[in-house]
Amino acid sequence: MPSPSQYDLTTPYLAVDLDVLDKNVTAMAALASDRGLSLRPHAKTHKCLEIAARQLDAGAAGVTVATVSEAEVFVAGGCRDVFIAYPLWVDRARGARLCSLAERCSLRIGVDSAEGAEMLARYTAGGGAFEVMIEVDSGHHRTGVAPDAAGDVALAAVGAGLRVRGVFTFPGHSYGPSSAGPAAADEARALAGAASSLRSAGVDVQVLSGGSTPTAALTKAGPVTEIRPGVYVFGDAQQLELGTCAVDEIALTAAATVVSRAPGRVVLDAGSKVLGADRPAWATGYGRLADHPDARVSALSEHHATVTWPSTSVPPALGTVLRVVPNHVCSAVNLADELVVVTGGAVVDRWRVAARGANS
Amino acid sequence: MPSPSQYDLTTPYLAVDLDVLDKNVTAMAALASDRGLSLRPHAKTHKCLEIAARQLDAGAAGVTVATVSEAEVFVAGGCRDVFIAYPLWVDRARGARLCSLAERCSLRIGVDSAEGAEMLARYTAGGGAFEVMIEVDSGHHRTGVAPDAAGDVALAAVGAGLRVRGVFTFPGHSYGPSSAGPAAADEARALAGAASSLRSAGVDVQVLSGGSTPTAALTKAGPVTEIRPGVYVFGDAQQLELGTCAVDEIALTAAATVVSRAPGRVVLDAGSKVLGADRPAWATGYGRLADHPDARVSALSEHHATVTWPSTSVPPALGTVLRVVPNHVCSAVNLADELVVVTGGAVVDRWRVAARGANS
Repeated sequence: MPSPSQYDLTTPYLAVDLDVLDKNVTAMAALASDRGLSLRPHAKTHKCLEIAARQLDAGAAGVTVATVSEAEVFVAGGCRDVFIAYPLWVDRARGARLCSLAERCSLRIGVDSAEGAEMLARYTAGGGAFEVMIEVDSGHHRTGVAPDAAGDVALAAVGAGLRVRGVFTFPGHSYGPSSAGPAAADEARALAGAASSLRSAGVDVQVLSGGSTPTAALTKAGPVTEIRPGVYVFGDAQQLELGTCAVDEIALTAAATVVSRAPGRVVLDAGSKVLGADRPAWATGYGRLADHPDARVSALSEHHATVTWPSTSVPPALGTVLRVVPNHVCSAVNLADELVVVTGGAVVDRWRVAARGANS
Repeated sequence: MPSPSQYDLTTPYLAVDLDVLDKNVTAMAALASDRGLSLRPHAKTHKCLEIAARQLDAGAAGVTVATVSEAEVFVAGGCRDVFIAYPLWVDRARGARLCSLAERCSLRIGVDSAEGAEMLARYTAGGGAFEVMIEVDSGHHRTGVAPDAAGDVALAAVGAGLRVRGVFTFPGHSYGPSSAGPAAADEARALAGAASSLRSAGVDVQVLSGGSTPTAALTKAGPVTEIRPGVYVFGDAQQLELGTCAVDEIALTAAATVVSRAPGRVVLDAGSKVLGADRPAWATGYGRLADHPDARVSALSEHHATVTWPSTSVPPALGTVLRVVPNHVCSAVNLADELVVVTGGAVVDRWRVAARGANS
């Protein structure tokens, strides 16, 4: 029986091009290997066991997640090395869950304050065969301590009975035009400074973990030993506009139907409940069309994408199915229960978004 | 056994204050009744069978939805009068689903083009005991035909064998500072114009349906017979900033924990995967705190809300649980699998977000 065509499906849905995905997975693994960097992809982007398995098969050392519940999904799915790259605030319930995880995988947990380290130690007492990573602020000004204060947090962690493995940062200020170069330099400087702060405090540092998709190609081994890019598996409209990927490297698109037309615009049936509402100030719209580079999603409602069509071509007819590139693919994936996997337009599989909504 | 306190739960989660919700439901029902308007709340906001039941008990004539799959959820849950207020593009599969729905409820379906009406008729031939509503553009410039073209679309629908019940519009341009008044006037004018266009074409008009939460209190019977507000059940930070609701009318908040602190800011564990990333240009941030009116969610990542804290008060300690008001509550609800229902701080129920992700 022939595989069904993806165009027989009811829109809207998220489609993954398997060939492009595999190329992206392989390319990032090669980049990390060539530079002597350990690769620990952030699984929050895809939330799929099948994609984590492909990343690990290609050489990833483990996966990164943002929440305890994401860790639980990936460990239940067979991942054996997990880093929760988030400064968890641990209570009794979360402590018990972390102890259970630590019995089943090699576990690293983020911390960015002495109080956070003490809570983690208190509620995992005796049960915690995990390691701690101290989070450092490299310029994104979100979580993380200043590099020169990292040693104090590490000392507090050690004092509470925890084992410190290293330091990490997320150079989120790499998301902006021409920002990746300076952010990568900030990242290297912050990790080196934090490592120095830990060593001054007498705490050994084995892992210096950084990396975002925009900075990955700019990262050098030495001040960094490990990178944690996430978005690279799929790409998205943000990465297109930042120049981090080309349109033929986009592995995930939303299939959407033209439901309404007016002069200069068409309206598609994929809105913010399919694409996500992310729109950084520097973006040219709420998303792009993979096959129409000059069209822009100029407005987004929950079930409508209004696409401004270039005057140089005729807008597509009602009923046409178009491929929309979401601005931020992590948000789009987290709205879907499954991804439709296609090769050459044929549906070859469906992958469950196993960690969808795993926020706690 | 006492009810568990909501503060024993692991954050982040969405909490519904049942008393406030019931007040909001009752108040909108009274407003509609006082003005002689039929109320057909948009269920895309809450996606919960329990809330639809409360709205119907309070006098709503039926519910509004945006997709066929939302209609399927609410009909399976007992709703007997459903309006799909969206210009569906109907193929064979969707046509069969609409015929099945029409056997189980009183069904209205939106149309905004002659081609759309013809597709609807073709794929529901003989099975469609439903009525059609012609969508009109009242100034939001999304979907809908110009009012004076509504008669042509209605004639095409009638010619294809469909029954036309009336016209509808969504005055989405009411979402902006001082925009609700002009948008309500535009809405009344567009519906009246469309009704006149239908009558000139010899098509009877029984329903003139409009209404958004910002315009509901400005709507008068006559040019409008039915309103479809959605957000009013919960309120959100957009409505606060538009002046459509007060903070004590906010029925849904995200409970989030302070996980990190730095001078002038705290970071909470509810990010865009809990709150949604919606941020209109006129909003003062990505969300508000229910109990701290001068604080603002100034940046949002997937699992981080960065809150800029006013210099006039001391930021809360690590581990403090705060109530975050999302910018756009429809987006927040669609990210959650369930809502935690509380009264006076005690958990009294959990409601499933039954139509979560129902986009097709």
